[in-house]
Amino acid sequence: MSAQVYVSGVGMTKFARMPDRHFEEIGREAVRKALDDAGVERARIEEVFCGSALTGRSMGQRVLRDFGMTGVPVTNVENACSSGSTAVREAATAIRAGRCDVALVLGIDQLTRLGGGTLPGVETDMDPNIGMVNPALYAMRARRYLHETGGTREDLAEVAVKAHAAGKHNPYAQYRNEITVADVMGSRMIADPLNLFMCCPTGDGAAAAVLMSEKAARAHGTATIRIVASALQSGLYKTGFRDMVHSELTERTAAKAYEEAGIGPKDINMAELHDAFAIAELMYYEALGFCGDGEGVALLRSGRTRIGGDICVNPSGGLLCRGHPIGATGLAQICEAVWHLRGQAGPRQVEGARVALTHCTGGGISGLDHGSCAINILVS
Amino acid sequence: MSAQVYVSGVGMTKFARMPDRHFEEIGREAVRKALDDAGVERARIEEVFCGSALTGRSMGQRVLRDFGMTGVPVTNVENACSSGSTAVREAATAIRAGRCDVALVLGIDQLTRLGGGTLPGVETDMDPNIGMVNPALYAMRARRYLHETGGTREDLAEVAVKAHAAGKHNPYAQYRNEITVADVMGSRMIADPLNLFMCCPTGDGAAAAVLMSEKAARAHGTATIRIVASALQSGLYKTGFRDMVHSELTERTAAKAYEEAGIGPKDINMAELHDAFAIAELMYYEALGFCGDGEGVALLRSGRTRIGGDICVNPSGGLLCRGHPIGATGLAQICEAVWHLRGQAGPRQVEGARVALTHCTGGGISGLDHGSCAINILVS
Repeated sequence: MSAQVYVSGVGMTKFARMPDRHFEEIGREAVRKALDDAGVERARIEEVFCGSALTGRSMGQRVLRDFGMTGVPVTNVENACSSGSTAVREAATAIRAGRCDVALVLGIDQLTRLGGGTLPGVETDMDPNIGMVNPALYAMRARRYLHETGGTREDLAEVAVKAHAAGKHNPYAQYRNEITVADVMGSRMIADPLNLFMCCPTGDGAAAAVLMSEKAARAHGTATIRIVASALQSGLYKTGFRDMVHSELTERTAAKAYEEAGIGPKDINMAELHDAFAIAELMYYEALGFCGDGEGVALLRSGRTRIGGDICVNPSGGLLCRGHPIGATGLAQICEAVWHLRGQAGPRQVEGARVALTHCTGGGISGLDHGSCAINILVS
Repeated sequence: MSAQVYVSGVGMTKFARMPDRHFEEIGREAVRKALDDAGVERARIEEVFCGSALTGRSMGQRVLRDFGMTGVPVTNVENACSSGSTAVREAATAIRAGRCDVALVLGIDQLTRLGGGTLPGVETDMDPNIGMVNPALYAMRARRYLHETGGTREDLAEVAVKAHAAGKHNPYAQYRNEITVADVMGSRMIADPLNLFMCCPTGDGAAAAVLMSEKAARAHGTATIRIVASALQSGLYKTGFRDMVHSELTERTAAKAYEEAGIGPKDINMAELHDAFAIAELMYYEALGFCGDGEGVALLRSGRTRIGGDICVNPSGGLLCRGHPIGATGLAQICEAVWHLRGQAGPRQVEGARVALTHCTGGGISGLDHGSCAINILVS
């Protein structure tokens, strides 16, 4: 696995509720932007990988059909919330194996047209049928976490406030309004103690990246940002938690990713982390090794994970503010990482970012007993 | 792409209508059989790839959950009729890239529980909404093919007769009855000129294979059957036909596969070919290079593609007789190829089989304008 893989271009749609657009057209917007950003013609693309959790069959072929890209090999990948990140891993592996030199990776979903993320996949999915959907599960985790750590509901609100303070600078974010702790606490209760603004919104969108082998990237002049790790693991019972508040799945995947990259959590300058709920950010701080067990609240309060902090988390606004069209999220994280590593992130730029981590985890879409976590690490 | 990949074990369920079984349990039966055949414990499996076109989300994780395999990386792959074959390709590539040494590949679908193969995927899928479903499309192709070649409806019936003559010996086939031309011609008309027995049945099933790197296979004593090519291509308009009767998609994919394997169609001893309809077998004879354009009927009549012929096609019974639980088909083809290459196929054995080709193509599941074709070539 020593061959190098570079990200030569990225692009995404604004995340939003777009029920009147067709997902095929949403996907093409992201593809067009990524190709333009990479400066490659569509004929240069040798393989396509498409991550989508909800948006139907032959998704990659659907998006490309009206785009003059009907002959290229397309591999559609699904892994719930980690669908897009898993597609990145498959593309990187195909390049490392020498199967292709230039690959396009697309992530896409359209929740307004094709259903949300917490309904049972089949009638025998016990958990969602008895009400154990993701908001309920994370609410219980939040209760336990606050009990164990001495954190407060205001801390959870601060996670959302931080997300919006960053996301207001992100033109691709679903929400661009600054909010206060009072706004969060006053928003509608979803699953006690999680208010509406502590839960990621439903929405639609697509994001894409052009990956190249070292040879192709050097010839093309884009041998700048490398993918140095792409780890994937599946979860244990209840989407991979070893108890109510510790994600064994994310811990294990992070360990694999750090090993592959030959770095540790202290080397990470910025992270795009799967904050589907405010409590998730605190728990995943710990699981990713950004702080010790039980220290998530203290890390949040320290300000180190804000823009300007030394371990900035979710400068994009994260799932809470940028949004979470499921299969698109992993690629949106790649976009954000690349913009920061290039110094192109504008007012939300993480200064001097050299090492970025993207983290997706989930699986509760149709039953909570199976999950997957995918972590990519990029360096410039 | 020079690293070798071996098939160390295979297993499958009987294909059948099994509405009372849960697809997770159907999948586990195939996994158990493949692991037993390979002689490996589940803990040896480093990665899992699951191909499924219909059967829902996080399919691989679902199957493995109650099987004590909840930590391993799982990549779910979808490519319509080529889902299982695409999963094989991803697994082989992961091994070639050094990402893992022992991978499990599963193909599965359950049409009786989760819908058939010709309904619109989304409401905007024009073709199926106006009645242009796969049986209708292949019926038109059949009319044109017979017109151009001088073939007859009895020739189409002979394809089904040949399939059942082989499949009656296959304990995993959905149908095991021998049929006559009169039986086929007397069966219910589906889409003129295609009678019921000229169309593959709907059904359920799963099939699996254990793939190993050369190092692992040699250590394990299973370095016998190699995957020497895994080609994937997407289709042009109307699932990849360059006119009514010539599959440009299969021609192009076959050319890639032959190039990768360093062999030609004359080297193939047996093929498992995607005969979703009787006419398809004749057209794909030509597209795979087993005969020239317009010579499919003559090849069929020659008997060379029967068991005992020098280019035996579908000794399993093919889709027409063994059945076609969509995502499972590609892996069932791998199973059949391996059994013949090992000399374990019993009364349907292709004597002296050394080189086997498996061919899946499709995409009309939800609109006919996008398709994919996957071809794997195995040698012993």
